[in-house]
Amino acid sequence: MALEQHVREYEVDIMNLQRAIQLIPGELIEIKLENGASLKSKSVIISTGARWREMNVPGEQEYRGKGVAYCPHCDGPLFMGKRVAVIGGGNSGVEAAIDLAGIVGHVTLLEFDGQLRRCGVAEKLFSLPNVTVITKALSTEVTGDGNKVNGLLYKDRNTDEAKRIDLGRDFCSNRPVAEHRLAESSTVNLSNRGEIEVDARGQTSVPGVFAAGDCTTVPFKQIIIAMGEGAKVSLSAFDHLICSSAPA
Amino acid sequence: MALEQHVREYEVDIMNLQRAIQLIPGELIEIKLENGASLKSKSVIISTGARWREMNVPGEQEYRGKGVAYCPHCDGPLFMGKRVAVIGGGNSGVEAAIDLAGIVGHVTLLEFDGQLRRCGVAEKLFSLPNVTVITKALSTEVTGDGNKVNGLLYKDRNTDEAKRIDLGRDFCSNRPVAEHRLAESSTVNLSNRGEIEVDARGQTSVPGVFAAGDCTTVPFKQIIIAMGEGAKVSLSAFDHLICSSAPA
Repeated sequence: MALEQHVREYEVDIMNLQRAIQLIPGELIEIKLENGASLKSKSVIISTGARWREMNVPGEQEYRGKGVAYCPHCDGPLFMGKRVAVIGGGNSGVEAAIDLAGIVGHVTLLEFDGQLRRCGVAEKLFSLPNVTVITKALSTEVTGDGNKVNGLLYKDRNTDEAKRIDLGRDFCSNRPVAEHRLAESSTVNLSNRGEIEVDARGQTSVPGVFAAGDCTTVPFKQIIIAMGEGAKVSLSAFDHLICSSAPA
Repeated sequence: MALEQHVREYEVDIMNLQRAIQLIPGELIEIKLENGASLKSKSVIISTGARWREMNVPGEQEYRGKGVAYCPHCDGPLFMGKRVAVIGGGNSGVEAAIDLAGIVGHVTLLEFDGQLRRCGVAEKLFSLPNVTVITKALSTEVTGDGNKVNGLLYKDRNTDEAKRIDLGRDFCSNRPVAEHRLAESSTVNLSNRGEIEVDARGQTSVPGVFAAGDCTTVPFKQIIIAMGEGAKVSLSAFDHLICSSAPA
């Protein structure tokens, strides 16, 4: 709110409650809004952020904020000494498990596949005394006592057996996913993770279109990093404007 | 100071008044200090910042902060309506001149060479009514009344004639240069501008050595950008540590 108030001190139009649904490249870049309106601009910055990838299992929404969390760097300290499960053994899952193992009492990492995908680091994970890794596990439900998480149900994909992990009362998952509804319907290049590809100046594959923050390929999703990237692409957009407005 | 106080709340050793003079790569990276001591670490982050490139002419130091300034984005607004000179017609000089032209009364851009180096944007500069560009100009002295800048002396390199620009009382120069004393004596790759080359994760050419902020090739030197890069390389260094500590 303080940031928005600060921006309003300048000659900046803020249009709230509008969803941009399409970006059409051109000398004037066109942004189509959901309400049918259309904006045209010499330069566009996409900073649509990311949402956390959800497990989509029963109990997840019910216990969100009551044991179900998505950001190990933000919420990890709240789980101090607790039994915690991390869903997903990809890069961010393995890193979250290692990171959390230094804070919480015990970490169980569940991976759908037969092995962890992050080479090298996985060995570090196996060397930690308070970490259990379960592969071929399909998470099926977050359970709780009505107030707090108390466990996680999963299917052992080797045997199709249903199993349960007692989590005392806490639970943690971690996988960010770029918010790319606008980008998907546009022509900017995306990575295989659905993030908008940017260069060191925040330039996307479309001239005049920049992107900053969690929706991009910039590694690590943290607010201070997104703030820096925002400043960077503003200056890039300024560069673009003074270049593109030069007479031919 | 608030930042330093914040850091001191954690288990972080801060060694003030020490100058690192050499970095020696290795499994344990060695940092040699000016006082003869030596530190060894699995991971090092270089964030030595940048200083402003100086003109090295009489009057510059005397009128520093009294009309001589180095950062158009920071100090530009202080020169509102004034007559200003920008030294150097490279990328940052041309951009500073365009930027300042929107704020100050008049800008004179002086370039040592016969032409401006920034293609495209230069045309924009020439289209502005309150900008004068002087090429083949060697700045020789900042003049003032004892309290404030009142002009700039330069040599016209076409005719070897000494000339003067009346600046009312203000003056502005702009060229950052990376503070690279440590980097120069080390084995990290530098750009031709003397900046430490980093990838999107802040990794330098030496494994385990990261760099963040104004001393790097990251475009645009702004404090919020440096803050973001600092967070980024901290997470990169964490990644490096958990990878390198894995058993072989």
